[in-house]
Amino acid sequence: MPWQMARRAERLNPSTIREILKITERPGIVSLAGGLPSADTFPVAAMQEATARVLRDSPREALQYAASEGFAPLRAWVAAELGTQGLHAEASQVIITTGSQQGLDLVGKVLIDPGSTVAVESPTYLGALQAFAAYEPEFVAVDGDAEGPLPQALDAARGARFLYLLPNYQNPTGRCMSAARRLALVARARQLGLPIVEDNPYGDLWFDAPPPQPLSAAAGDGAVYLGSFSKVLAPGLRLGYVVAPERLYPKLLQAKQAADLHTAGFNQRVVYEVIRNGFLREHVPTIRARYRAQRDAMRAALEQHLPPGCRWQAPVGGMFFWVELPAHIDATALLPRAVEAGVAYVPGSTFFPHGGHANTLRLSFVTVPPETIHTAVAALARVLAAA
Amino acid sequence: MPWQMARRAERLNPSTIREILKITERPGIVSLAGGLPSADTFPVAAMQEATARVLRDSPREALQYAASEGFAPLRAWVAAELGTQGLHAEASQVIITTGSQQGLDLVGKVLIDPGSTVAVESPTYLGALQAFAAYEPEFVAVDGDAEGPLPQALDAARGARFLYLLPNYQNPTGRCMSAARRLALVARARQLGLPIVEDNPYGDLWFDAPPPQPLSAAAGDGAVYLGSFSKVLAPGLRLGYVVAPERLYPKLLQAKQAADLHTAGFNQRVVYEVIRNGFLREHVPTIRARYRAQRDAMRAALEQHLPPGCRWQAPVGGMFFWVELPAHIDATALLPRAVEAGVAYVPGSTFFPHGGHANTLRLSFVTVPPETIHTAVAALARVLAAA
Repeated sequence: MPWQMARRAERLNPSTIREILKITERPGIVSLAGGLPSADTFPVAAMQEATARVLRDSPREALQYAASEGFAPLRAWVAAELGTQGLHAEASQVIITTGSQQGLDLVGKVLIDPGSTVAVESPTYLGALQAFAAYEPEFVAVDGDAEGPLPQALDAARGARFLYLLPNYQNPTGRCMSAARRLALVARARQLGLPIVEDNPYGDLWFDAPPPQPLSAAAGDGAVYLGSFSKVLAPGLRLGYVVAPERLYPKLLQAKQAADLHTAGFNQRVVYEVIRNGFLREHVPTIRARYRAQRDAMRAALEQHLPPGCRWQAPVGGMFFWVELPAHIDATALLPRAVEAGVAYVPGSTFFPHGGHANTLRLSFVTVPPETIHTAVAALARVLAAA
Repeated sequence: MPWQMARRAERLNPSTIREILKITERPGIVSLAGGLPSADTFPVAAMQEATARVLRDSPREALQYAASEGFAPLRAWVAAELGTQGLHAEASQVIITTGSQQGLDLVGKVLIDPGSTVAVESPTYLGALQAFAAYEPEFVAVDGDAEGPLPQALDAARGARFLYLLPNYQNPTGRCMSAARRLALVARARQLGLPIVEDNPYGDLWFDAPPPQPLSAAAGDGAVYLGSFSKVLAPGLRLGYVVAPERLYPKLLQAKQAADLHTAGFNQRVVYEVIRNGFLREHVPTIRARYRAQRDAMRAALEQHLPPGCRWQAPVGGMFFWVELPAHIDATALLPRAVEAGVAYVPGSTFFPHGGHANTLRLSFVTVPPETIHTAVAALARVLAAA
């Protein structure tokens, strides 16, 4: 049968990372490639209590069709929580999404026309590039430094439908934007009439001090904010949220209705039961402490083992180290040898909207215990030294 | 801030039904408007056991990121179950989706270009029109009779990207396509090179005899099949599935990844725990018996109360009666008076891709007990008689 694909289907491609992850699931391989949180942090006991309570007290509501906007108490919780972080939002601005990945898809659906421009950090989150690519934009890469994208670099993004930013412990670089840089970016974006899409899956995973206020706090109706429960509770529930300005909200909501009617009400009620009485204030610090110790282990291992000419910066939160190898080393070409040596990573070029940067790679430190991190980094270092 | 919307955003509109439902949630109104299954059918005890078991036996896997294709045992279950219905599919052809609404969105994303044609029954499921509309097709309405669309009417759909069909107890008409009509449609569609998208949310809700085999059983690689757990278990879990031919599968899977990475693994494992040992063979007959009794009640009430000139056909499965009023009565204009009289319905014109047919309406018989159905239909009849 001659199925004729939409033109946009050409822009849909297998996730390189997911293909790599399949290879690296072989026994005996230590994977530093994943973007998964540590399953040791999942609050299983709290989930057991919450699911039992929801199915005892409100099974009919939890299992029935529900509002596309999301469960009202959870929306109010999100608005209140963001308020404590300096982002003042009304519950009426919140849409609960099926993971924050869906937020990216809805934003793309509502804002991107074929051939329109979307400005992104370079490198940036691969899943965002995939979500947006389905709507056929041209990507403009915004140059930056260790503090974030450069305000003057936004001139290249003039006329873009939006600027997509991951200010906190970015995937893949681990970079956290400074407070001053955030304000400068918001000011310059406003001058240019450039809306901001702010994605914050990792902001709660700070190690020593919370990150600066969200850009959205300063950008007002010039920003959409995306958040997630995947890194502070569990990704297998697929719960995220979008906070949208009044002008955008109705269209995002209609796109949400068309996409999956609503996010599973059962999951929303369970999560609300888990978090309603301040659970995260006790729970998230335990995740931070664990990840900080593993960050320390990876930093020590990199310092001890990596050959000269490799550069990295220790992240102050999140899940990732970003490593720049000597210019002549191709991390993609090297991956099979690393896997042979028992360690896997994600080649960095996959995170760049226009490819290149073959001499970069991403390492996750959150799913592997400290002693294994040391062994794995040592093995990686031997492969690098041989190259 | 001058957010510029994508052109497709113009095609996104509030769901008329959801707006109506808001009005009709006022106390004292009997709503025959909803498309909700009866909450009395939700298997709460089985859910309680299954959630407890999943969180006891595999919490780390259930709460972690998971494969975009879906939980392998659930995919295998779907393939085996469809086999018993005459549709031979491999587990490798199944993608678990976030409700079958997401299946419609993914099909639209992969197959529809702006200005391309999509052929639909007229009337058809509003949510499908909404999902597809976001990709800016032109809709072609395919004429039909009580047995389904007419094979010769497919000529009007020549060149369409696909023909969207709801063969079993269609929403909104309740119509079930005859076996002969299914085969004739598949044969004509094959001659025309016209792919079929078969949507089957209601097929298990038969009252006296199962529906004929799916069109997909005869159409082979010329059809995509969509199914759902919403009507046989609970919609609040948001679980559906797509069965796709080899040529289409990779693109649907990549669209799925971009849309929400994967459907909640927790929900998939819980549902698999509920159904793995044949639970639905005991459970679904109880839903059928309940809905059949309520269908009987509504048929009796319509026969007793509705004024002359109104026409309907009793459905042999599903959830809906479709009523044609005398030509001069506008069901949309009449709705406020019906609501005043204490009863709500959905005006039929909303289900037609090009509007019109103002003298039609849809009544659900599944959420309201028989005695209330009688009262509500009597009230509706008085409003109609006055018009």
